[in-house]
Amino acid sequence: MRDVAIIGVGHTKFGRASKTSLELFSEASLQAMDDAGVVGADIEALFQGAALPGFEEGQVMPAAFSAAELNLGPIPATRYEGACASASVAIRDAAMWVSSGECDMVLAGGVEKALTMGTAFATRTFAMSCHTPTEGAVGLTFPGVFAMAARQYAKGYDMPLDSLREKMAHVSIKNHRHGALNPLAQFYKKMGNLKVEDVVNSMMVADPLTLMDCCPFSDGAAALVLCPVEDAKKYTDDPVYVLGTGQGSGSALSKMEDLTKPVSRIQSAKVAFKRARLEPKDIDMLELHDCFTIAELIALECLGFFEWGKAAEATAQGETDLGGKIPTNMSGGLIGKGHPIGATGASQVYWMVKQMRGEAAKGNQIDPVPEYGMTDTLGGDFGTLCHIILGRTKR
Amino acid sequence: MRDVAIIGVGHTKFGRASKTSLELFSEASLQAMDDAGVVGADIEALFQGAALPGFEEGQVMPAAFSAAELNLGPIPATRYEGACASASVAIRDAAMWVSSGECDMVLAGGVEKALTMGTAFATRTFAMSCHTPTEGAVGLTFPGVFAMAARQYAKGYDMPLDSLREKMAHVSIKNHRHGALNPLAQFYKKMGNLKVEDVVNSMMVADPLTLMDCCPFSDGAAALVLCPVEDAKKYTDDPVYVLGTGQGSGSALSKMEDLTKPVSRIQSAKVAFKRARLEPKDIDMLELHDCFTIAELIALECLGFFEWGKAAEATAQGETDLGGKIPTNMSGGLIGKGHPIGATGASQVYWMVKQMRGEAAKGNQIDPVPEYGMTDTLGGDFGTLCHIILGRTKR
Repeated sequence: MRDVAIIGVGHTKFGRASKTSLELFSEASLQAMDDAGVVGADIEALFQGAALPGFEEGQVMPAAFSAAELNLGPIPATRYEGACASASVAIRDAAMWVSSGECDMVLAGGVEKALTMGTAFATRTFAMSCHTPTEGAVGLTFPGVFAMAARQYAKGYDMPLDSLREKMAHVSIKNHRHGALNPLAQFYKKMGNLKVEDVVNSMMVADPLTLMDCCPFSDGAAALVLCPVEDAKKYTDDPVYVLGTGQGSGSALSKMEDLTKPVSRIQSAKVAFKRARLEPKDIDMLELHDCFTIAELIALECLGFFEWGKAAEATAQGETDLGGKIPTNMSGGLIGKGHPIGATGASQVYWMVKQMRGEAAKGNQIDPVPEYGMTDTLGGDFGTLCHIILGRTKR
Repeated sequence: MRDVAIIGVGHTKFGRASKTSLELFSEASLQAMDDAGVVGADIEALFQGAALPGFEEGQVMPAAFSAAELNLGPIPATRYEGACASASVAIRDAAMWVSSGECDMVLAGGVEKALTMGTAFATRTFAMSCHTPTEGAVGLTFPGVFAMAARQYAKGYDMPLDSLREKMAHVSIKNHRHGALNPLAQFYKKMGNLKVEDVVNSMMVADPLTLMDCCPFSDGAAALVLCPVEDAKKYTDDPVYVLGTGQGSGSALSKMEDLTKPVSRIQSAKVAFKRARLEPKDIDMLELHDCFTIAELIALECLGFFEWGKAAEATAQGETDLGGKIPTNMSGGLIGKGHPIGATGASQVYWMVKQMRGEAAKGNQIDPVPEYGMTDTLGGDFGTLCHIILGRTKR
């Protein structure tokens, strides 16, 4: 098995797009190929995450048409659907095809038109990545799932709900502040100075989660070019290494013992750390799945960055911000940057690569430039989890 | 890279199912695991093809919930969507993960509830795997696509359309005859004695294709257990080797020069033959994508089994039947066995394995037992192609 590197990255503006998914994915892909200094003829396979293209634009099997749009020829082009983790699963598989020696240069990424379809329709259709027989049947959608998780968190750690709400607000404040600094973020130059009361007093969505606890639906795409490490130096002075990946799957909520400790995430992260031969203490940055503020806290604990029940207070104390113990979602995360479902995992990797090149947006760059970073992407209500650990050096 | 073998197979009855997709996939998977003599704890990853579960049952990300339903634990579980080629793409990827050494035992397959959703809704939604901006916009569906292909075939080879219709009828007659002998087929014991006039005089769907030129929509699932060849003998005396796979992608029809010579199929098959170190003359059986009678003729030529324009007459002469040059779709194919979209690729592999074990249905078994076989699966109108070459011996 060969070591794998990322040699080029591309990312559209997140928000409301007039472009189609095909156009958005092409934009990100052409940027990534240009960034890597490669052309279409160099690309041997395409790995694309897309969650709901059939509902958004009446198009399924989008990967094939993206390959055609990009003039890549009759290469293998595969669509992966793991709800919000679609792109991460695609990237993980892309890394495997390069690592195995089967491909020497591939394009991987994701795309979604989730904002254009409207919040009501998006909420209904994305809820199909819950366990439909038991959760869809009772009308459960994701704000409801994470509201339950927040209540379980508060109860489990004997924390007054209002106290948790204030601590969760710090996730929103931090991620909106960094999103406001990120020119590609949906909320660029918006909501950069939220206060706790702005978050807790905004519109209630699913008690205790307010609108400011929730990420938005977005349109957008992100893409990467991957090749073997041995070839990477031909293309770039700053290759970023894929050191380890993990993937896990969950069950219906009714079979889960504790929404704040999803086994799928714990297991997937464990595998990724093992493959990368790293531990949480080695990691300098996280891009993790803050679909709701409580989700960021749960992820921080599952990945081993804080003891159980301690991430809320640690966040309130700034330990997940610049200069803290583990800078988290310095891109703005899903909350500040936006959440184009099938693109999110690729966007997380994009911003890790930018950080490792010292090219993050002004005010968001971690100093010193991070050596190791990790993404965490969550599909549905813990149905699919995927982790990718990257590094500037090979461990 | 390690060689890979199939050590267990499972297949539900195709047709109208009262079971859900989760239940159908579990049925096929438990059969496959039982056939292999393995249990859930042995399975390290799940690779599942499913084309339109969101439209059928309001469920996306089905692979995760299948893993949960089967009690496989928090293992990676990935859904692949390549329209009708979904399962083949999943199996191809599964073989890669085993071949690379990353997994020692995996489950792969596919599932669909295409019949239960009704022909009208199924036709509309599956048409989304056409190029929506140009083909969906004009209301094109697959019968129309293949009617155009039939007309191009007749015109290209200077063949009167009525003559082609009679020759295509022999595909329908052959595949219905074998489907009628296959207890798991949708048309088991039905239409086993069609005559040319039954086919050409049945209801016109898209001129020149009648109802009897078309495969049905079906519900069903099929699954396989794969492991490295070095372990296979521990589980079975009849492992079937995965000798080579290929995958290709196409474009909008408007960019295709000739619907009867899709580059995506030619390229994908070429790769599969190269990997398997085999040529068409070495292959003893085909399970190929006869979504329409004309589609079988096109596939036979693209894969190199007949000269361009010669498959129609060869079929009429029985060269693709038992005892002919290349027995094709002895399971009944999509036309006689049924077409549960996301399961079809796995069903093709299932019936190849059954043939290679000498366990095909009475009247369908090739004699002598085939040594090498090949599947061909087509997603959409040449958007995704996938080929899998299997063998009883390692080449």
